[in-house]
Amino acid sequence: MKVDELSSQKIFGGWHRRLHHRSETLACEMVFAVYLPPQFDCGEKLPVLYWLSGLTCTDENFMQKSGVQRLAAELGMIIVAPDTSPRGDDVPDDPEGGWDFGLGAGFYVDATQSPWSAHYRMHDYVVNELPDLIDARFPNSGRRGISGHSMGGHGALVCALRNPGRYQSVSAFAPICHPTHAPWGQKAFGHLLGADPRTWLDWDASVLIGLAQEHLPILIDQGEADQFLAAQLKPETLSMAAERANYPLTLRMQPGYDHSYYFIATFIDDHLQHHAAALKG
Amino acid sequence: MKVDELSSQKIFGGWHRRLHHRSETLACEMVFAVYLPPQFDCGEKLPVLYWLSGLTCTDENFMQKSGVQRLAAELGMIIVAPDTSPRGDDVPDDPEGGWDFGLGAGFYVDATQSPWSAHYRMHDYVVNELPDLIDARFPNSGRRGISGHSMGGHGALVCALRNPGRYQSVSAFAPICHPTHAPWGQKAFGHLLGADPRTWLDWDASVLIGLAQEHLPILIDQGEADQFLAAQLKPETLSMAAERANYPLTLRMQPGYDHSYYFIATFIDDHLQHHAAALKG
Repeated sequence: MKVDELSSQKIFGGWHRRLHHRSETLACEMVFAVYLPPQFDCGEKLPVLYWLSGLTCTDENFMQKSGVQRLAAELGMIIVAPDTSPRGDDVPDDPEGGWDFGLGAGFYVDATQSPWSAHYRMHDYVVNELPDLIDARFPNSGRRGISGHSMGGHGALVCALRNPGRYQSVSAFAPICHPTHAPWGQKAFGHLLGADPRTWLDWDASVLIGLAQEHLPILIDQGEADQFLAAQLKPETLSMAAERANYPLTLRMQPGYDHSYYFIATFIDDHLQHHAAALKG
Repeated sequence: MKVDELSSQKIFGGWHRRLHHRSETLACEMVFAVYLPPQFDCGEKLPVLYWLSGLTCTDENFMQKSGVQRLAAELGMIIVAPDTSPRGDDVPDDPEGGWDFGLGAGFYVDATQSPWSAHYRMHDYVVNELPDLIDARFPNSGRRGISGHSMGGHGALVCALRNPGRYQSVSAFAPICHPTHAPWGQKAFGHLLGADPRTWLDWDASVLIGLAQEHLPILIDQGEADQFLAAQLKPETLSMAAERANYPLTLRMQPGYDHSYYFIATFIDDHLQHHAAALKG
């Protein structure tokens, strides 16, 4: 497992590092970012929070714009931010040339359809290969949380719901809660998983939450002025499914907030506290 | 004084607004950003902190990457971030095509030389036209601070030192402290102010600090791992000049930090507290 360090920058007493490796799962070269709080250098075994970004993002957006490092440094949490899709010249992209599917928009599922299945296995990458690499290179407490935004919020919910025991905490910002009934999800799943919508259900948080055996409490923040709320995100569907299943979900509707990183920055501290309560306990 | 609002986004209970206007001083269309903390909507009269960004930046970088809004919302401070140069197709740019002079690099001086003097009057814009516009549109307490990064740190120091009484607080991150003896400053001043280096001295903080009649305490943070430290920034020159003049300057050298917004984000809270102590007292 060869990993190269691309850069290392000090922030809030810790280090923001960008690393590069060849992913076996995705069959391509990948870059990811990790924030190591100051306690890491003192040998403390810290929990790891995985952050999945939204459409068009890379490993950089969250690290540059969320302000997550301030409280992560105080609480002692490692933050890992992968890229949002496989990358490279031989990785197929949206045939329509859109920004909502393909490169920068891998939707955190494991594709079953050609030509996508050769590379688009972001779920397996995020849940297995990347944590193995992190655990080998950055000794930690073994406790894991996962969160994300929009497409990455969907990814975080699905990763937690499909893999009981793998994570000890989960949250999301403005997640795509019901992708099988939203244009973004339908387009991506149609390519990656094929034309039969029944095969999509395994990747829809509003379906999975009703089948969950483990009831990890979910915290979701959603801006009420989010331009994608009604057509793409549908938190009310997830909320109703959680209620039917008696699943502990806290959905906070935030008046005036939109879909941007300004919204994420405002509430990231609450999410870190939510994760820390479960991961550091 | 016609001003158009381009966008308004909620963050930390306040509003990040981008505004557009025709600047008489710069003879072009300009965009700037303002953060209005939640207390503004309640009618409180708040102080205003002006932020001057560095080379290649616009009004956006600081608002997206510094995390300034969190503590500004708590303290009740309005933040204003102008662009870094005049803009537009008829504004002349670096004849060498560089990123260190011209568009995105106006150096916050008032040019005396053709063709620059028609537009490159960023000092006058930042010190006079923009505050007049802010005061007219956003009623405030009338107390002003100024800060900035790199080229903008130079700008903040020079604005405060040249205009006693205009600001009640000043600070800088990794400022160009002695531009008349640094390649960036020499190139820009040579164009904007002409070939005679004697005319440059009025725009050099290390010179101005020895002549200052008002002794506004200056806080400077400087990363020790900053790639531009030795050749371009020269804080030791400013520090020695301040000592000779018995001028109150606190220069904090920060081990391991570079020139990036990760460095700014780490120490922005300290600077806000420095300004708040003077502006809210």
